[in-house]
Amino acid sequence: MRMRERVGEHHAALDSAIDHLLSSGGKRVRPTVVLLTAAMFGGDPTRAVTLAAAIEMLHTATLVHDDLIDGALLRRGAPTLNAQWTPGATVLTGDYIFARAAHLAAQTGSLVVMEMFARTLMIIVSGEINQLFRSRSKDLRKDYFDRIYAKTASLFEVSTEATAVLSDAPAAHVALAKIVGYNLGVAFQIVDDVLDFVGNQEEVGKPVASDLRQGLLTLPALLSIDSRPVDDAFLDAILQRRLDPAVLEDLIWQVRTSDAIARALDEARGFVRLAQEALASLPACRERDALSDLAAYVVQRTV
Amino acid sequence: MRMRERVGEHHAALDSAIDHLLSSGGKRVRPTVVLLTAAMFGGDPTRAVTLAAAIEMLHTATLVHDDLIDGALLRRGAPTLNAQWTPGATVLTGDYIFARAAHLAAQTGSLVVMEMFARTLMIIVSGEINQLFRSRSKDLRKDYFDRIYAKTASLFEVSTEATAVLSDAPAAHVALAKIVGYNLGVAFQIVDDVLDFVGNQEEVGKPVASDLRQGLLTLPALLSIDSRPVDDAFLDAILQRRLDPAVLEDLIWQVRTSDAIARALDEARGFVRLAQEALASLPACRERDALSDLAAYVVQRTV
Repeated sequence: MRMRERVGEHHAALDSAIDHLLSSGGKRVRPTVVLLTAAMFGGDPTRAVTLAAAIEMLHTATLVHDDLIDGALLRRGAPTLNAQWTPGATVLTGDYIFARAAHLAAQTGSLVVMEMFARTLMIIVSGEINQLFRSRSKDLRKDYFDRIYAKTASLFEVSTEATAVLSDAPAAHVALAKIVGYNLGVAFQIVDDVLDFVGNQEEVGKPVASDLRQGLLTLPALLSIDSRPVDDAFLDAILQRRLDPAVLEDLIWQVRTSDAIARALDEARGFVRLAQEALASLPACRERDALSDLAAYVVQRTV
Repeated sequence: MRMRERVGEHHAALDSAIDHLLSSGGKRVRPTVVLLTAAMFGGDPTRAVTLAAAIEMLHTATLVHDDLIDGALLRRGAPTLNAQWTPGATVLTGDYIFARAAHLAAQTGSLVVMEMFARTLMIIVSGEINQLFRSRSKDLRKDYFDRIYAKTASLFEVSTEATAVLSDAPAAHVALAKIVGYNLGVAFQIVDDVLDFVGNQEEVGKPVASDLRQGLLTLPALLSIDSRPVDDAFLDAILQRRLDPAVLEDLIWQVRTSDAIARALDEARGFVRLAQEALASLPACRERDALSDLAAYVVQRTV
C-alpha cells in the first residue's frame, strides 16, 4: 500500500516503528472518505490514493506527537511509540511521518491541494497549542467545538474538499463536499468523546473518561454539567486536574448514567444529517450512497 | 518580513516564541543564498522571498526539535525554547513552524519546488534519526559527510536548486546551481564544526567542543585522530560518552592545538572552490560574484 511503499529507505528501527503505527488498526475512516469522494466525482484513483495516504500519514504524525505530549501509553489498545521509545526518537518519528505526508501531498500534483494540506496542518497544531495554553473561557461549548474542529473536523473537511478539487469537481460540488467532510468530522469526534465515557476500556483501548481525567471537557461532560450546574471553583478544579479522586469518579459516573450521553449522540446525529443533506444535493451514484451510509455508521459504531 | 507576516493568527505565547526564534540572530545565510540565486537567474523576487522564508522556517523548525532532543539550553548565545518551555510546547511550536514552512513552500506556486522541499525535510529528519540510533561504523569519515549532508548541505542544495527551478533557469543551470548549494553547505558545516572547537564560547553561543562532548566526531576530531590513531575501545568510549572527563578535556585540547583545525579548514576551502567553479560556469553577473564572495566568506567567518 502507498503509505508503506517508501518506508524501507532508512533506519530499521524507524521502519519498524512506522510499520507498527500503520498496522495498528485504526478505522482508516479518512482514507475511505477520500477514496469514496474521488470515486463519486470520477476522479483519478491513483491521485486519490496518494492523497488518502498523505492524509492518513498526517493524522498518524499528529497522533505520535500528541501521545508524547499527553504521556499516553496506549492508543487503539496498543502501546504508543512514546511508551517504548525515548522522547527524542518519538519526536523525530513524528517529524519523519510529517515529511512523508507532505511529500505525498506534493505528489498529488495539485498546488491547491498542497496549500490546503499545509493549512490544515497549521489548524491542527494551533488547536493543540491552544489546548496546552488553555485557560477557562466564558463559553465552554464554543471552546469544545473549536477544539474538535482543529483536532478532527478540519482534516475530514480537507479530505473531502481536496479530493473534490483533485477530481476537478465544479466549484459548487467542492463547496458541498467540504460541508460533508466538516459535518462528518464533527459527528465522528462527538461519538469518539461519547465512547470515551461509555466504551469498554479494552475496546476503546484507553482508560474510561481519559479526557476528563486530563482536565478536558467534552460534549457529554458539558451536557451533564448543563443539567446539574456546578460552580466556577468546581469547574476550575476539573480543568486544572485537581479534583479529589473520589469526586472525579463520581462525576464520571454521573456523566455515564445521565441523559448527557443520549443528548450528545443526538447532536452527533444532527451533524450526520447535515452531511447527508449536502450529499443529497450531489449527483446520485453508488459512492454517494456509500458515503451517506458511512455517515450513518459513524454514530452507530462502538469502537 | 514574510516570515513574521502571518504569525499573529493564534496564541500570544506561540507568537512570542516564534518572534523570539526569528529575531534571535542567526546568519540568515540560507535566505541570502536564495535571494542572490533568484536575482542571478532573473527570477521573480516575490516568489523568491516566499521560498527564502519557507527555507529559513524549515531550518528553524528543525533547530527547535533538535535542541529539545539534545537538551541544549543555548543556541546562538540565547536560551533555547526548551530551556524555557515544556517539552510539549516545544514539540508543538516546532510542528507549527514546519506547517508554516510547508504552507509558504506551497505558495511558491511550484509543485517541483514543493516536492523538493518535502524531500529535503525527509532527508534532514532521517539524518537525525540515524544519528540517534548510530552505532560505530567502519567508515567514520563517510558517516561524517553523510551526516553533514543531511544536517546542512541538503538544505543549502535545495535552496539553490529550487530557486533555479522557480526562476525558470535552463536544466544545465539548475544542475550547476545544485552543485553550488551542495558545496557551499558542506563548507559551511565544516567551518561550523571547526568553530565548535576554536570559537570563543560567548561568540559561538554554546560550550566549546559541544559535539565531541555529545559523542559526535566532526571533521577536526577525525583529522586529529587520524594523525594520532586511537584504539577501538577509546573510540567507543568517545561515541558512548563515557570518557573520563580529564581525558575528554585533554582530547579537546589536542584537537584545538593540532594541525587538524588547519586541515579541516583546507577541506572546507576545497568545497568553496568547487562551489566557485560551478558559479564560474554560469553567466557572469553581479549576483553571481556576490555568491562567490559569500562562499569565500563562509570559510573566513568567526561566528
